[in-house]
Amino acid sequence: MARLRIALAQVNPTVGDLAGNAGLVVEGARRALEAGADLAAFPEMVLTGYPVEDLALRGSFVAASRAALTALAARLAAEGLGELPVAVGYLDRREAAAAGQPAGAPENSLAWLHRGEVLLRSAKHHLPNYGVFDEFRYFVPGDRLPVVRIAGVDVAAAICEDLWQDGGPVSAAAAARAGLLLVVNGSPYERSKDDQRLELCARRAREAGCALAYVNMVGGQDELVFEGDSLIVDAAGELLARAPQFAEDLLIADLDLPEADPAAGEGSFPVDAGDGSVITVERRLVSGAPRHDGPAEDPRAAEPLADAAEVYGALVTGVRDYVRKNGFRSVILGLSGGIDSALVAAIAADALGPEKVHVVLMPSRYSSDHSVTDAEELVKRQGLNARVVPIRDLVDAYERELELTGLAAENLQARVRGNILMGLSNQEGHLVLTTGNKSELAVGYSTLYGDSAGGFAPIKDLTKTLVWEVSRWRNTQAGPGPFLAALGPEPIPVAIIDKEPSAELRPDQRDIDSLPPYDQLDRLLDDYVERDLGHDELIAAGHDPALVERVILLVDRAEYKRRQYPPGPKITGKNFGRDRRLPITSRWREKH
Amino acid sequence: MARLRIALAQVNPTVGDLAGNAGLVVEGARRALEAGADLAAFPEMVLTGYPVEDLALRGSFVAASRAALTALAARLAAEGLGELPVAVGYLDRREAAAAGQPAGAPENSLAWLHRGEVLLRSAKHHLPNYGVFDEFRYFVPGDRLPVVRIAGVDVAAAICEDLWQDGGPVSAAAAARAGLLLVVNGSPYERSKDDQRLELCARRAREAGCALAYVNMVGGQDELVFEGDSLIVDAAGELLARAPQFAEDLLIADLDLPEADPAAGEGSFPVDAGDGSVITVERRLVSGAPRHDGPAEDPRAAEPLADAAEVYGALVTGVRDYVRKNGFRSVILGLSGGIDSALVAAIAADALGPEKVHVVLMPSRYSSDHSVTDAEELVKRQGLNARVVPIRDLVDAYERELELTGLAAENLQARVRGNILMGLSNQEGHLVLTTGNKSELAVGYSTLYGDSAGGFAPIKDLTKTLVWEVSRWRNTQAGPGPFLAALGPEPIPVAIIDKEPSAELRPDQRDIDSLPPYDQLDRLLDDYVERDLGHDELIAAGHDPALVERVILLVDRAEYKRRQYPPGPKITGKNFGRDRRLPITSRWREKH
Repeated sequence: MARLRIALAQVNPTVGDLAGNAGLVVEGARRALEAGADLAAFPEMVLTGYPVEDLALRGSFVAASRAALTALAARLAAEGLGELPVAVGYLDRREAAAAGQPAGAPENSLAWLHRGEVLLRSAKHHLPNYGVFDEFRYFVPGDRLPVVRIAGVDVAAAICEDLWQDGGPVSAAAAARAGLLLVVNGSPYERSKDDQRLELCARRAREAGCALAYVNMVGGQDELVFEGDSLIVDAAGELLARAPQFAEDLLIADLDLPEADPAAGEGSFPVDAGDGSVITVERRLVSGAPRHDGPAEDPRAAEPLADAAEVYGALVTGVRDYVRKNGFRSVILGLSGGIDSALVAAIAADALGPEKVHVVLMPSRYSSDHSVTDAEELVKRQGLNARVVPIRDLVDAYERELELTGLAAENLQARVRGNILMGLSNQEGHLVLTTGNKSELAVGYSTLYGDSAGGFAPIKDLTKTLVWEVSRWRNTQAGPGPFLAALGPEPIPVAIIDKEPSAELRPDQRDIDSLPPYDQLDRLLDDYVERDLGHDELIAAGHDPALVERVILLVDRAEYKRRQYPPGPKITGKNFGRDRRLPITSRWREKH
Repeated sequence: MARLRIALAQVNPTVGDLAGNAGLVVEGARRALEAGADLAAFPEMVLTGYPVEDLALRGSFVAASRAALTALAARLAAEGLGELPVAVGYLDRREAAAAGQPAGAPENSLAWLHRGEVLLRSAKHHLPNYGVFDEFRYFVPGDRLPVVRIAGVDVAAAICEDLWQDGGPVSAAAAARAGLLLVVNGSPYERSKDDQRLELCARRAREAGCALAYVNMVGGQDELVFEGDSLIVDAAGELLARAPQFAEDLLIADLDLPEADPAAGEGSFPVDAGDGSVITVERRLVSGAPRHDGPAEDPRAAEPLADAAEVYGALVTGVRDYVRKNGFRSVILGLSGGIDSALVAAIAADALGPEKVHVVLMPSRYSSDHSVTDAEELVKRQGLNARVVPIRDLVDAYERELELTGLAAENLQARVRGNILMGLSNQEGHLVLTTGNKSELAVGYSTLYGDSAGGFAPIKDLTKTLVWEVSRWRNTQAGPGPFLAALGPEPIPVAIIDKEPSAELRPDQRDIDSLPPYDQLDRLLDDYVERDLGHDELIAAGHDPALVERVILLVDRAEYKRRQYPPGPKITGKNFGRDRRLPITSRWREKH
């Protein structure tokens, strides 16, 4: 056995920021070396950020990624970090043509950097093409397993989906008798995926017959949030070390690993990958002895977050990074006195600090007194920048030019508010946050260009039920914390959580006048949208038949509105963003 | 040789309208039988409409498509059409599990219906997964070639992409010595694709060693427009018959085709498909003698449309079907006196009839006199429903509540206009047409929720240069015609075409103050957006370096706006819709 100290760098890259991302690698490698590590590993496509979408199809971007990789290798050496083997994800292209694949096709690649050079390159073998993933559009699959012998231990490496599918690099690592399987990931957050991830890593470690080190990125990228949760299991699948969720981290652990047969030197050989393909193992030797010879340190094993905390962490991370990575410094939102905008304000205050959060109270003739007083109380508790812009005179001005009644008149009020927020955004430079929730989006209970206006929608993937749950959870927490600011106690006044939901667009309006009770609606949406059950299956699952027909029709007809909605952090399987793509024009009805 | 009369039904299905689409098949089969045809063929996935996107992943929808197919077979027989072999595209699922593919995975399928039964089923072998296509997300590939012996001739069949890729069903058809290769298609329109299509059909006919009959759908489906252009070539690749573009049609042709070896009866056998796969040929015999024994009729060969006519046909088709298939009866748009809204009005009037087109003149304090008089002249020539809603008092009302200057004040005016159009849409039920062009969209020269508000954007894929070209072409045409209404002469006043472009959002504003001249801009956009050239390549191609940097930055920064833009008919390779998918958050710059 040899004792290796490994460093997993759970960093937060930005798509397209090659220089900034290279800086993250240099900084992480420096800290790893200072900590005495024998290797440092970074996430999938850390150098380009992930996912790059159609940027992968631009030749100039691929060339820039390749150039950035060789420059990074040289820079690591120039800064005295060249002896540390560093695994880095990046975008490459396949030089040779293969069956059905032209030369120069992009690859989702991994490189080992050492002594100023690119020691080994390999590409992701299993490409995900479901949910938010379109990797068959972008990449051709790889067919090589890189193995680097570090301090006598053979370290094999694979990329993200390679872990989730049977056969391929995991099988090849077993066939190559690797002492450690390193997996680099850009694995987006979904509720409770952390439980699944540990179980999967344990199973694959047993299949590979060796310890497994899983490094994931952290941070928000458009609709995706990466939670981190990097971890290490031993060959029996037992958890050895785990990084926190929603925080950057350098996870260091000392592992006792089997030494490779010294007679098996550098070279390449094919192995059956167990998925109908043959993978070529490429082995390189880099260093002879462990860098650190003291006793093993106790590894850290962060506790996974509880469900509501995890969701809240994802929302704060998503908002913070969308704002920052798009170059905004502040946000603005309309505060109605209802729960949705109250929660969005708290998320924004936690993400950016309350001094960066601007809220506008826009009362109309239908606004209740408590809407204004509750909103004012929230402003005080959270410490936000607030102003009041009454909309009554604006709505009156429209009514002098147009005769709008019913829904058209209700929508007008929402659009006047949208105009005010967008006007202030254009004037003062704030990003507009949109405050709609998933239950509303699902059934189309929103106004195009009205309450749906904005640049980012923090709670678009939370049902109303979850909005309440997360709000109550936030009220139990005292910041500051990893993703909490130091707001006042109970930052969301309980009156706002407890009041009956209303859009307040006509006298005495209540959500219940237009929608089923949220507990029924949300359960049905979960089965129809997330689980994709059909009409008959929904009824068999116990939903009221009349409600099923009504809700299916609402959901199907709201596709256009959902497409026009701003992006927001993905929390569940389907967030009406990249992972549910339906025609706008469709006559399909579940029941005829 | 045997003489077969074949009927290609160039029909216009609607996604999800299983009953309506089945009706199209019955009606087409009836007309084919009345015309003495020996077989009738319908487009790819005609029964479900195409593309169905994530509906393919709903089990209830797949089951409904399968049930609709068997019901259609029975109905054809019940209506006395059972003796006619009918080829119909539909959505199926693969019963068995295959390598890496679970049982029940969806297939893009083709069925031959005969005597009330489904005679043969097969699935698309080559799945397109580029541009607007995501078929690896939806379908598993087929591995069978159906061959139906009709009047002594072996008719093989393939589906759309099977024609565009080397090997596969075309090679299998050659190996099976088919007498005719039928290809059913849902092949979206792109400028000048008709030339490419004929050349491809000719080449594949020679490879297959037999005549080739290509049937395509027609009509609009969200952003895609199908042009028809069904055609038949002989075994040497010579054009025999061709249906018109942008019109429903039943193309009938008498073909003299080689008879199959009578000793080769029903059964299955494997052939090498030349693409690394093995395809199983399945042969069935259905009828003994040609139905029609008179002399061959001269086939029709429609002339392909000239470029501007073709583009205009696609726009009219796209608008007409988006309106109709989404259940709208009329449209509304803002008429500024500029060329973009003038052309959109003409397209809408041609698509729906001018009586279904409502326009709103919304002059501001910055509107020039000619804007109003030119718009009024257009209304008169096209016969539209017009009203005037001045925005001055509305803008004043906002200015009493908010201090907006510069761009924020300009955007406000556009948003007030957006509100008016949306208010009238909500009140009166018209679909709002958005009038922006591709040059504006590319560089972000538009206002979120202002001029970009609406449900469909007819010219979002036309550069300003093409807007002018198509407008001039329309003025040379006298309707009515296949996609032209009987508007007055020169429906777009020449003054509107010739005037200098201006948004009229501040005094004496001209586009040239903010943007490069359109001839330079549009050429650069073509190279950067359509051809994906990088910074250095653009300069090497002769574009001004300063202009390249300026425009690249504008284009890259406008991604969010483009994502929020309504859908519109796709005319070129990349319409900022489904076929250009870039991250919103990206720090990538072509030049650092």
